[in-house]
Amino acid sequence: MSTARGVRLQAPVFEIGLKGYAYGAEAVRLARAADRLSQELGVSVIFDPQAVDIPAVARETQHLLVFAQHMDPVAVGRGAGAVLPEAIREAGAVGTMLNHSERRMTLGDINRAIRRAREVGLATMVCADSPEEAAAIAQLGPHIVLAEPPELIATSRSAATEMRGFVERTVEMVGRIDAGIIVMCGAGVQTPDDVEKMIGLGVGGTGSSSGVLLAADPIGQMQAMLAAMKQAWVDLHGSPPGLQQSRGTMG
Amino acid sequence: MSTARGVRLQAPVFEIGLKGYAYGAEAVRLARAADRLSQELGVSVIFDPQAVDIPAVARETQHLLVFAQHMDPVAVGRGAGAVLPEAIREAGAVGTMLNHSERRMTLGDINRAIRRAREVGLATMVCADSPEEAAAIAQLGPHIVLAEPPELIATSRSAATEMRGFVERTVEMVGRIDAGIIVMCGAGVQTPDDVEKMIGLGVGGTGSSSGVLLAADPIGQMQAMLAAMKQAWVDLHGSPPGLQQSRGTMG
Amino acid sequence: MSTARGVRLQAPVFEIGLKGYAYGAEAVRLARAADRLSQELGVSVIFDPQAVDIPAVARETQHLLVFAQHMDPVAVGRGAGAVLPEAIREAGAVGTMLNHSERRMTLGDINRAIRRAREVGLATMVCADSPEEAAAIAQLGPHIVLAEPPELIATSRSAATEMRGFVERTVEMVGRIDAGIIVMCGAGVQTPDDVEKMIGLGVGGTGSSSGVLLAADPIGQMQAMLAAMKQAWVDLHGSPPGLQQSRGTMG
Amino acid sequence: MSTARGVRLQAPVFEIGLKGYAYGAEAVRLARAADRLSQELGVSVIFDPQAVDIPAVARETQHLLVFAQHMDPVAVGRGAGAVLPEAIREAGAVGTMLNHSERRMTLGDINRAIRRAREVGLATMVCADSPEEAAAIAQLGPHIVLAEPPELIATSRSAATEMRGFVERTVEMVGRIDAGIIVMCGAGVQTPDDVEKMIGLGVGGTGSSSGVLLAADPIGQMQAMLAAMKQAWVDLHGSPPGLQQSRGTMG
Repeated sequence: MSTARGVRLQAPVFEIGLKGYAYGAEAVRLARAADRLSQELGVSVIFDPQAVDIPAVARETQHLLVFAQHMDPVAVGRGAGAVLPEAIREAGAVGTMLNHSERRMTLGDINRAIRRAREVGLATMVCADSPEEAAAIAQLGPHIVLAEPPELIATSRSAATEMRGFVERTVEMVGRIDAGIIVMCGAGVQTPDDVEKMIGLGVGGTGSSSGVLLAADPIGQMQAMLAAMKQAWVDLHGSPPGLQQSRGTMG
Repeated sequence: MSTARGVRLQAPVFEIGLKGYAYGAEAVRLARAADRLSQELGVSVIFDPQAVDIPAVARETQHLLVFAQHMDPVAVGRGAGAVLPEAIREAGAVGTMLNHSERRMTLGDINRAIRRAREVGLATMVCADSPEEAAAIAQLGPHIVLAEPPELIATSRSAATEMRGFVERTVEMVGRIDAGIIVMCGAGVQTPDDVEKMIGLGVGGTGSSSGVLLAADPIGQMQAMLAAMKQAWVDLHGSPPGLQQSRGTMG
Repeated sequence: MSTARGVRLQAPVFEIGLKGYAYGAEAVRLARAADRLSQELGVSVIFDPQAVDIPAVARETQHLLVFAQHMDPVAVGRGAGAVLPEAIREAGAVGTMLNHSERRMTLGDINRAIRRAREVGLATMVCADSPEEAAAIAQLGPHIVLAEPPELIATSRSAATEMRGFVERTVEMVGRIDAGIIVMCGAGVQTPDDVEKMIGLGVGGTGSSSGVLLAADPIGQMQAMLAAMKQAWVDLHGSPPGLQQSRGTMG
Repeated sequence: MSTARGVRLQAPVFEIGLKGYAYGAEAVRLARAADRLSQELGVSVIFDPQAVDIPAVARETQHLLVFAQHMDPVAVGRGAGAVLPEAIREAGAVGTMLNHSERRMTLGDINRAIRRAREVGLATMVCADSPEEAAAIAQLGPHIVLAEPPELIATSRSAATEMRGFVERTVEMVGRIDAGIIVMCGAGVQTPDDVEKMIGLGVGGTGSSSGVLLAADPIGQMQAMLAAMKQAWVDLHGSPPGLQQSRGTMG
């Protein structure tokens, strides 16, 4: 997928989950570093800051896939406090995360939010707690499904080592429904080694939040994780990340 | 209250509720006009755009009280999809709306959000459905209580004419608990005449959302409503809005 | 499916959705009549009263499929205010509705509730707003998917006539995922004619709430609707409802 | 307050919070024991089983104040999955808990639920996390406010010893608003000694959930706690619990 900004969404993808760990000037500083790494290594990087920081992050970067952390299935008009799809699009986001374990949505809202995102040209990365939920979400046509065993989120126990079956089952179930959906798995990804093991299980991407944001050297940690992802990808697939995985234009 | 930006929060206050009616460049255009009117008329204007538009609106205005439409009672760290107090503060907001009828919160979250706002130096305008709920909120120490009969929101039936008892009872109940809290009432405020009648009932402010945003000439409508508010205030209180109503510094 | 009470869950199924229309003695009176009709006509009838009325309804009937209106994915222990699976089972329910449009659940909670229901031996009827959501739910292994266009619920406009494509698409999408799932469609089913048309579209069942409960003669209306369902079923399938549709024992 | 069943709601009150710890036959067994103890000791005992167990518990007891664990502010009619006030009343409940920390409600729903309860003649016990929230709730006119520091719920650390200031401040703030409201405090009440200390702080009641339900001998534990409550009450007030604390008829 090529976005309006000319950046591609293709496997392997790494999500740097900002949550509320960094904001403002610090979020922009990290975004600039991630932007440079994305270009140098040629891998897709999703960066999802606080909504208020989307404009600055989008303005200061060229290669990052800037995502919102959440978006509501509302239309232009009423909806005080809701995140309007058109507004985050105009602010520079190219996609949105949905249904994160810290911001659960009803099934109906997930479905409507994916449709609204499609209407305005935003990509969707939808979170799931289990392989079955990942399969359910796959029926709704998102670009990415991100499955994370909730009990491992924000821990140092990685799904890649502790829940190998969880990861393999997710890849298989989603792939059977729609091979065009990128399957990412996360939770407990704290080190480059965790990244490498996860990619080795056949996922289309992974990500880290506390593993990067709470590291002594967050930028050094990003670099090491992204390099590990790329190397593991080449080792498994025999070729670098490239256009052949592209699934066409967004929306 | 004087904010970090040097703007005052004092009665009478007018809230221009952007909701999802305007965003991006259009939100900034309306903000600039509201900013000029706030200065010219010497009245406090709360302007609450989509979160992504807070930075541009704060940058392009000097007198507006830029509020978030919603804020979550989270701390720096985890909380994907939550609106972090520190992030909206750094982006230029001086306050936040809470518990709007389109974004209800639990009682506990309202309480914690007011405390978080105080910690980071943000003002709070908390919505209520009834005089009793306004009194309940007053126990939690917000800067403003905004009471709106939900059945009139986004209609052309104004609380000032149809629910006079609602308005008077809210002013009286909140005033008895804490005279420093600004009591605003709204819902169905569609014309300058509605504004005048509402101020005549003794409230510390009012506001409009669809009445401004769906008007043929939104800026002309803002101007007429703000002028009506000022005149009604002078008529009732015998003096222009001024420093004597100030309740000290924010937080 | 044969339940502990010896009643079968097999197409065609008719749900009498009590909601908050009837309760207490009146709920039991309607349940007795529905029970007799279920036996006489040989069709499966789901009857879902208020939770407090489950014990009396279960005690006073023999053929009805007594369902809870909602159940939470909680375990024995904490969870004040939650509907515990073990408790409704012991009270005599044989299943539960989940995710009704008036009681939405997150995707994760739907998934966990289906698993908890299976553990304690309760059937699940899960509501969906659209064919896509029905397909998503089908991935989670419920016994029944009940798809209703939310804009028609509690109206006199029937999905069978107004949204034929909605119904046919739901039947087809769910059937492709798991042919053992009973696909029901509803919303706006107010007359025996609506029931007949709906069954004619190939669904495994339908239901009515206000159409029965607000009728001048609720029991007469039930009888007419159930008879219409049976006749339409025979007309379409050439044989009466029977054991051949059974999908085995519950859970 | 005298209820329809002829039982009184007056300080001191002890709540046995069933949650999902006990249900069905076991809930009825515990209720019978609690009923006998309530009569013998002459103290008010609130017993709140799963909704499905309300009818049997109400039928099998004479002195218990049978409460629902939650109730929704709905009217007769639509509202699948909601707990209808009229239904729990007809099933034998004399009151309902609201806003438990495991079942949070919005401020508006708390207010509307208290009004609905009053309409149908049910008492209300509304939970709060802090003295400020207790004061906010007191503005809404409940019969009882139950304040519990959430971090101590289901632990063995009692608010009576660890959060003395919390308890005293709650009693004082609520009392200043409406001296007719019974102020209860709980959380971490695991032993008769915890009960004694809590009553000594001047509250109108306390309660226990895991402290009773997970005890080796739940009935013995109830007895010891209720006896401790009565003794501590006599020690503090110099007279046994009696009619003088009654606040009139319910509703």
